[in-house]
Amino acid sequence: MSTYLEENKDRFLSELLDWLRIPSVSADPKFHGDVLRAAEYLKQRFEELGVDNVELCQTAGNPIVYGEKLIDPSLPTVLVYGHYDVQPADPYELWDSPPFEPVIKDEKIYARGACDDKGQVYMHVKAFELMQRSQGGVPCNVKFMIEGEEEIGSNNLALFVRANKEKLKADVILISDTGILSNDQPSIEVGLRGLSYHEVEVTGPNRDLHSGLYGGAVPNPINILCKMIASLHDENNDITIPGFYDKVAVLSAEERAELNRVPHSDEEFKQSIGLKDIYGEKGYTTVERIGIRPTLDVNGIWGGYTGEGAKTVIPSKAFAKISMRLVPHQTSEEITQLFQSHFERIAPAGVHVQVRPHHGGEPVVTPTDSVAYQAAAKALETTFGKKPIPTRGGGSIPIVAMFKTELGLDSVLLGFGLDSDAIHSPNEHYGVFNFLKGIETIPHFFQNYVAASRS
Amino acid sequence: MSTYLEENKDRFLSELLDWLRIPSVSADPKFHGDVLRAAEYLKQRFEELGVDNVELCQTAGNPIVYGEKLIDPSLPTVLVYGHYDVQPADPYELWDSPPFEPVIKDEKIYARGACDDKGQVYMHVKAFELMQRSQGGVPCNVKFMIEGEEEIGSNNLALFVRANKEKLKADVILISDTGILSNDQPSIEVGLRGLSYHEVEVTGPNRDLHSGLYGGAVPNPINILCKMIASLHDENNDITIPGFYDKVAVLSAEERAELNRVPHSDEEFKQSIGLKDIYGEKGYTTVERIGIRPTLDVNGIWGGYTGEGAKTVIPSKAFAKISMRLVPHQTSEEITQLFQSHFERIAPAGVHVQVRPHHGGEPVVTPTDSVAYQAAAKALETTFGKKPIPTRGGGSIPIVAMFKTELGLDSVLLGFGLDSDAIHSPNEHYGVFNFLKGIETIPHFFQNYVAASRS
Repeated sequence: MSTYLEENKDRFLSELLDWLRIPSVSADPKFHGDVLRAAEYLKQRFEELGVDNVELCQTAGNPIVYGEKLIDPSLPTVLVYGHYDVQPADPYELWDSPPFEPVIKDEKIYARGACDDKGQVYMHVKAFELMQRSQGGVPCNVKFMIEGEEEIGSNNLALFVRANKEKLKADVILISDTGILSNDQPSIEVGLRGLSYHEVEVTGPNRDLHSGLYGGAVPNPINILCKMIASLHDENNDITIPGFYDKVAVLSAEERAELNRVPHSDEEFKQSIGLKDIYGEKGYTTVERIGIRPTLDVNGIWGGYTGEGAKTVIPSKAFAKISMRLVPHQTSEEITQLFQSHFERIAPAGVHVQVRPHHGGEPVVTPTDSVAYQAAAKALETTFGKKPIPTRGGGSIPIVAMFKTELGLDSVLLGFGLDSDAIHSPNEHYGVFNFLKGIETIPHFFQNYVAASRS
Repeated sequence: MSTYLEENKDRFLSELLDWLRIPSVSADPKFHGDVLRAAEYLKQRFEELGVDNVELCQTAGNPIVYGEKLIDPSLPTVLVYGHYDVQPADPYELWDSPPFEPVIKDEKIYARGACDDKGQVYMHVKAFELMQRSQGGVPCNVKFMIEGEEEIGSNNLALFVRANKEKLKADVILISDTGILSNDQPSIEVGLRGLSYHEVEVTGPNRDLHSGLYGGAVPNPINILCKMIASLHDENNDITIPGFYDKVAVLSAEERAELNRVPHSDEEFKQSIGLKDIYGEKGYTTVERIGIRPTLDVNGIWGGYTGEGAKTVIPSKAFAKISMRLVPHQTSEEITQLFQSHFERIAPAGVHVQVRPHHGGEPVVTPTDSVAYQAAAKALETTFGKKPIPTRGGGSIPIVAMFKTELGLDSVLLGFGLDSDAIHSPNEHYGVFNFLKGIETIPHFFQNYVAASRS
């Protein structure tokens, strides 16, 4: 660790904790003011560090925090992307400490957004400070674009990017919103799954009914929703939507063998999340199920009486949130269409079904032979003392595909989280080790990237 | 309508509205104080009318309001049963006016409990007043037993009855907690379905997971709960629990034809609740599906993210409330056992399933050739000008079977509600016509019953 980092790490952490205190939940309108406060907080930090032209770029939704340090047009430009919005924190009662009152316990920062993605964005802010104040300044041009709608689909980001291609001109995009295999084994994600997310609503009778007076003679929307959802997988856990697998890339035996070389133990996997048995699509390993296969999961379901005790009701409506993770070469538009028409088609005659697509994202595989990937790999090798492994992540950063389409740029996913960080869950946390290691590694990436670009 | 009723009906209604203002929801502990207030309110009304020995009989749960008027040991005794507790009122936002701020609109009383069962209990209170003050007193002995736990299974009532057989000695039980076919066509329920009610909990991973990082490789408890629920019905809508139908009484062709003679139109049925199509067990009519066939309905389901927007989570747990309506000669104990063991058995290896039985009730068919049934039929014919039709109701009044077992007494179900009263639903209401018709009819029942008992 550099002297500067060593001397300032407590302040770095305390600044991050201040930011985490702002509940910038983008999914829920009641946090809108906090979302704006979180953007403003970041803008001020950039300004204090001498980032130029810092602004809150207005969109139809939450603002995008933009800033830049352009030192020499002949040098390459790195565009750093991240997001300051966070997932909803409920169920609050499952948190050991309140999600927006961050605490450091056992060398981990506990808070919603600690890892995803405020903690990782803040590594870039502090890496910039480190380069500016202890390394004679950033070695190339830097642009920052930190958005506030990643957790709800980044819809306005695409419009912003399309409208600001000149401003965003760069050579590569650098993103820290992913993870490494472990603190002993660095890795870089090279594949990300896409997403197609829907809310479905099944309506039976036009009002809630007494289950005694009507039961047996009316379509119960909960029973029917369950039946419809159940029918979306067959006995091999394959997804039954016609055409769903048509575009899925088939990997060669070699590629699959290579993929399965990442350190993984089903026993440890089961233990880490308390499972009695592994589960998934027949014919694939756990690593493959997460890395190269599409999925369909219900993310939420509700209907009828959910309070204490018993209520003998047949509700009028039942709801579910259903999402699919996509892999190359599925597209979210096509899968969204397939899902919507299939789900409406399988509804029995007595009920009314509505499918509301929420947001989507495209699957992507990034090249490992690029200058930028190699610069990142070398940076990690320097700071971890071990070569990183390229991995296929199961998550989605939909904007990676969008950046490629709109700006023609590849992204490097230099993330420092761990699978065990519980992002999107109660007790989300981020290792102090990982936060500091990120701040240490990022400047190496810049140096390596500039050096390789010159040669 | 008698002069006394005509002259006092506004006061009768206003007293009922006062009682309806007390939110006596038995399912939710936070209303416990209101439940006690509702019992106390009823006790005071009885006392004002000269009912003797009025008391709040303590139980392990909510008190039972008891009172009696014993005029002559040589005359028969009618035991009036009802309940002062009500169903939970949520979802509150679907009520046009607040559930515990009763209003009379279009000649209907809107409030939780307006029909089920405070409104119908209060008919008995006012019929007693009418007999006492305008007919020279009740023509036979009367006992009142109004409980506060009907909506949560009447568990303590059975203990109370067992411990007070002498006190409750009577010749027949009179209950107004059911309905008539329409205001033009009186009817008396002679069959009631039993109930077996459960809460189930499915646990997959031991914490909520990110659906990207884990999706495809872990058992999602919502998907699995849906699959398990879906498997409980086959393609004919028959219930698949082994042994479920073993004890179901098979009706003869004649009995079924008789049953189907009640006025019923599937078109009107569909229209009344906004259904596109009827639905139910293959091979049975709507009347049979409700009257003589057992059912399995999900009354509530919840799990994962149910807030606004999208959250990509695989939850640790999913829950459902599942109830079965039973018919002769199923027993709730046996079906509860069959359900529990079947539901646990069909859980896939990767998840943990818990089944918590809530409460049950036995199905019952009451005789139509009894003195009491005939007295009720004649009373309805007098006040409606039309012979009532005996019907098989789909609902459950579990205590009817219990009264038969414990006290050896038949019950007469002299209810005045309508299917459209939305009991257990938002906007529950009770017709002013029905309330007053009940007060008018009940004294006729007493007179007919005493007369027939003497002959």
